[in-house]
Amino acid sequence: MGIILASKSPRRSELLTKCGFTYKIAVPEFNEDAYIRENTTQGMPVEDFPLILARGKAIAASRITELKEGDIILSADTSVILGNNIMGKPKDKDEAFNMLNSLQSNTHTVVTGVALLYLENGKPALCCDKAITRVTMQGLSKDEINEYIAKENVYDKAGAYAIQGCSDFFIEEIRGSYSNVVGLPMGLVRRLLKKINYI
Amino acid sequence: MGIILASKSPRRSELLTKCGFTYKIAVPEFNEDAYIRENTTQGMPVEDFPLILARGKAIAASRITELKEGDIILSADTSVILGNNIMGKPKDKDEAFNMLNSLQSNTHTVVTGVALLYLENGKPALCCDKAITRVTMQGLSKDEINEYIAKENVYDKAGAYAIQGCSDFFIEEIRGSYSNVVGLPMGLVRRLLKKINYI
Repeated sequence: MGIILASKSPRRSELLTKCGFTYKIAVPEFNEDAYIRENTTQGMPVEDFPLILARGKAIAASRITELKEGDIILSADTSVILGNNIMGKPKDKDEAFNMLNSLQSNTHTVVTGVALLYLENGKPALCCDKAITRVTMQGLSKDEINEYIAKENVYDKAGAYAIQGCSDFFIEEIRGSYSNVVGLPMGLVRRLLKKINYI
Repeated sequence: MGIILASKSPRRSELLTKCGFTYKIAVPEFNEDAYIRENTTQGMPVEDFPLILARGKAIAASRITELKEGDIILSADTSVILGNNIMGKPKDKDEAFNMLNSLQSNTHTVVTGVALLYLENGKPALCCDKAITRVTMQGLSKDEINEYIAKENVYDKAGAYAIQGCSDFFIEEIRGSYSNVVGLPMGLVRRLLKKINYI
């Protein structure tokens, strides 16, 4: 029995390890865009999407896992949101520049949905919630943005930055969970694991 | 020319390195208690102490350093404050327990004073400010506190916890700079370095 992490994110693995958890990893095939199309209605706030996706990922992971009593599938989805737009990973240098340029001197929102899927009296049960953190960036000149893009691997990061790297240098303040911005809100994970009496 | 870090904290070194700075280290002899006695008046808010201490440390470091035009001494002092009390490093297990027990289910303040000492037209000049972060902890049972004390080296940490370790697991939210809680508010360091046209 134990935690099955339905994510291939090294940052999520690292956070769980740091907090003393052992876990297996089981990453399901999962088409995020198709899942959002099928499971949302028009006008639904984008802040709700990460929770919907985390739930979907947990269910997809349960199909490739032999779940036993005491096992918990843990899945998560993190979005960087500015206004009503979700920022994905930048495809090229121009997109990375535009993302960082819109984030600088501004406050954006990072939302992570977390879902636990486990057996309760032999039947699958879900326990989910989301964490919201507001992140305010200092002003960045064009040169500073270009320098950051040249130095960091921004292409595998939603919003083109990683708070755990050197970007803390130009973050003015955050309001909420820090680990949420890294990719897995550990305070929320703790609350959910307590709720289902795992810890 | 370059940065001279007047601190032996490995966490401050690590943050500077992560943000791409090179620096030398020069740690002066400095008696914090005596300096506070001589440089504060009764009734002065304890939130002001870190800035006073950072300034004092920078001046002390300038006495052991051959400062050249373009050099900057960077010093910092971090305090964990609950109510009107500064929490130092716990002396023993009981003190660590009492500190963590007073911090749990509660919001405390972390203040870091940062001072830059440099030459302006050949004369020493100071540029200083403080960063304030509010940290809210989740509830912790006695067993959880004891487990944390057994696992972590709490005795070299003010307030008996380190946010960059596994304690993020029981932190509900922060309001302000994260690196401030680690020991050096990089957003503030950036602002001060810009103010004196170093970057």
